[in-house]
Amino acid sequence: MNPSKEYITEWLKALQDEICKALQTADGNAQFKEENWTREEGGGGRSRVMENGGVIEKGGVMFSAVHGNTPDFLITEKEHTTGAISEKSQFYATGVSIVIHPQSPMVPIIHMNIRYFEMSNGTRWLGGGIDLTPHYVVEEDAKFFHQQLKIVCDKHHANYYQKFKTWADDYFFIKHRNETRGIGGIFFDRLNDNEELNFEQNFAFWQEVGKTFAPVYTALIAKNKNNVYTPEQKQWQLLRRGRYVEFNLVYDKGTKFGLETNGRIESILMSLPANASWLYNFETTENSAEADTLSKLKKGINWI
Amino acid sequence: MNPSKEYITEWLKALQDEICKALQTADGNAQFKEENWTREEGGGGRSRVMENGGVIEKGGVMFSAVHGNTPDFLITEKEHTTGAISEKSQFYATGVSIVIHPQSPMVPIIHMNIRYFEMSNGTRWLGGGIDLTPHYVVEEDAKFFHQQLKIVCDKHHANYYQKFKTWADDYFFIKHRNETRGIGGIFFDRLNDNEELNFEQNFAFWQEVGKTFAPVYTALIAKNKNNVYTPEQKQWQLLRRGRYVEFNLVYDKGTKFGLETNGRIESILMSLPANASWLYNFETTENSAEADTLSKLKKGINWI
Repeated sequence: MNPSKEYITEWLKALQDEICKALQTADGNAQFKEENWTREEGGGGRSRVMENGGVIEKGGVMFSAVHGNTPDFLITEKEHTTGAISEKSQFYATGVSIVIHPQSPMVPIIHMNIRYFEMSNGTRWLGGGIDLTPHYVVEEDAKFFHQQLKIVCDKHHANYYQKFKTWADDYFFIKHRNETRGIGGIFFDRLNDNEELNFEQNFAFWQEVGKTFAPVYTALIAKNKNNVYTPEQKQWQLLRRGRYVEFNLVYDKGTKFGLETNGRIESILMSLPANASWLYNFETTENSAEADTLSKLKKGINWI
Repeated sequence: MNPSKEYITEWLKALQDEICKALQTADGNAQFKEENWTREEGGGGRSRVMENGGVIEKGGVMFSAVHGNTPDFLITEKEHTTGAISEKSQFYATGVSIVIHPQSPMVPIIHMNIRYFEMSNGTRWLGGGIDLTPHYVVEEDAKFFHQQLKIVCDKHHANYYQKFKTWADDYFFIKHRNETRGIGGIFFDRLNDNEELNFEQNFAFWQEVGKTFAPVYTALIAKNKNNVYTPEQKQWQLLRRGRYVEFNLVYDKGTKFGLETNGRIESILMSLPANASWLYNFETTENSAEADTLSKLKKGINWI
């Protein structure tokens, strides 16, 4: 079957339901609160946010489906020059975006986004990404996370894991700190009938990325949520969250797009943590767990 | 006299000394710590930061004087086209930048920057700005602050206060929130022998802006530092600091320039608070002091 935008949209809403249910069970304490919003220029979304849970301090699982005139920045130079896409083009974009900030510094921050985009001339593509930001890098967990992503990728294309893992290393990078945001994951964009797969085959891959989120993250929660931690480790978590804020406000393309196009601000900045900290000239102690983590926030590490 | 870059540089260092001394006295508890740094491409700076003071939670008074090849973005389109400024041009830039985050939500955040820039072809200019970000807008304090700035401006040019106050309203604006950062102040750039004053006359104005910082801010500290506050008011302070982070990482030109040109990252991000908070969909209570403050974070208010 060749999935229509209606089918994809409904599938994403069902995925949002499924993920929220799994996260509520894993949290064991709090529920997601829902807001439905509409966009003046067309479409809207269903935002679900949890605050002050047993495990999750602040987390959002956001669905949106918006449409209207195609923003100029989405039309490539070539498409402009050849007139392949006119300014009258309409777009339709739908996706699910997730950021979870846990209470405990022993549980990693996670982010996932999967998105579908089409234009009135028939052009369409799939994009997505999932990356993990541990406050403390635990090699066993990093290996597990990447292995699960590799299993998903390998089922569909022999090169996808390596290609999209490298893309994630490059994308989730805080240039001014010369640090990756965390241990990366996968990132991909503009999948259609390229990469030796047709659209339907890429769609199957994309669906499986979405389905992988809940089992992988709830496993990491279950493994780490009861680990004890010190006030110093909590302070380190706040500093790492400061870096997360820096990435999202300075580099993240979704955030920038949202801010520039007058999107629903509370949904866009849901990704920011409940609290974060910046200490001047903070330096880790030699041979500490913090120094070890910093040494692993580099591109190109083979976690598997 | 026509001040040389050496004279201006020494004057700025003396201003840094004077301001640090006044702030230490006002704080009564902590001292500034100094770091001297050098820039690979030329020049360096003297950073002074105070943390965990009696009044000041985190504050920096930073001096820098850097030089090298003129960055492309500083050369205007016209200068490019006419070849008035070649790529071989050398620049020299020196300034003092200050951001103070107080412990108490009853004491306002303040920022000041004054800067001098020259190029090897003889072009030179003065720039600066000072703006106040109260966590709670107190009209009496806002009026005092603007009145002091107006007194400084009026001594030098009848139009400066109105012109530079409007410029500050436009510059210190968080577009995606449709809020000004605080109650504004003054902002100006590229002053030379324009605006009916010659360079020396503009230099005298610029010096007086620098000299105004310490008496004005220490007066606001003295007036407000002993006001009691609740945990809810402290939480509101953290949310307002979140907005400060948003402004600095998304819009502030000095920050952007620093991040893009590989500046000393700890000096650039000194402006971020020790801690900040983001709550999803936070709304102020009707007729509360918080709602009153939000209603006053607008452009074009005549505070005097």
